[in-house]
Amino acid sequence: MSDQKIVTPDTAVIQQNGGFEDVLREAQQSGEFQPLLDNIPYANLIGLKFQRLGNDVLFHLPKNDDNIGNPILPAIHGGVIGGFMELSASLHLMMNMDCATLPKMIDFSLDYLRAGRHQDTYAECQVWRQGTRVANVAINAWQTERSSPIATARAHFLLTK
Amino acid sequence: MSDQKIVTPDTAVIQQNGGFEDVLREAQQSGEFQPLLDNIPYANLIGLKFQRLGNDVLFHLPKNDDNIGNPILPAIHGGVIGGFMELSASLHLMMNMDCATLPKMIDFSLDYLRAGRHQDTYAECQVWRQGTRVANVAINAWQTERSSPIATARAHFLLTK
Repeated sequence: MSDQKIVTPDTAVIQQNGGFEDVLREAQQSGEFQPLLDNIPYANLIGLKFQRLGNDVLFHLPKNDDNIGNPILPAIHGGVIGGFMELSASLHLMMNMDCATLPKMIDFSLDYLRAGRHQDTYAECQVWRQGTRVANVAINAWQTERSSPIATARAHFLLTK
Repeated sequence: MSDQKIVTPDTAVIQQNGGFEDVLREAQQSGEFQPLLDNIPYANLIGLKFQRLGNDVLFHLPKNDDNIGNPILPAIHGGVIGGFMELSASLHLMMNMDCATLPKMIDFSLDYLRAGRHQDTYAECQVWRQGTRVANVAINAWQTERSSPIATARAHFLLTK
């Protein structure tokens, strides 16, 4: 077919978009999400780990010198705290959805409450609302005590087929 | 003095907090901000670069396999776009402030407008307001054209002595 000429490598890759959703479907069926995480380079870059506790999921960002923003304090950079919380929200939603579509983040609002020290950071998410088209997720991050969060955020996701 | 016993290595480091501000003051005086950037491990982790264009600053996140969130599309992870924009906002403010205090981010709100493809990403910031205590910075990120941003965000910073 002559119109195949206009398929660039990029658009060819996009047409295989089902691939990630296959990985997601498999993870949702088996309950084993580590392979999904292994498929996300940014998760490996910052060193994200998780632990399932029933329906809850505890996300964990281990202390990592590469995530430092202020080397003198030393403090974790706000950008990595935000990135960790965004990634946690996406993963939490994928782990708790009953469909295997890739959620697309619409917006993200983050309030910093305390300095993020150079130590392990944890995050937990709650799906406040999951409609057929939009989901609303809240995220809290803490270091020493869950009751003293270092940041709180919320995100909206578009759920498309 | 006996009360020195309770100084942990962490608190000892915090007492040297002036160090980063010294680096910042030097950068502001010389107009040479690369040494400041070299002091921020998270900037090196994601590969942030910048270019000064008069008072404007163009921030640049080169295409990097480690920043991928969806390997099938492939698309940059929202978390790294957010982190890049947060870091750009902090740096832009530090480059344009007339004092050498380290701005502390209070909050960050991000709207995703288009998918971030696996290619170079750029960001520009504007300081909407800089009071004595709070600064308000807007950030736009784009890939192909400045007029088609992939994300737009704003941040508040606390300016303390």
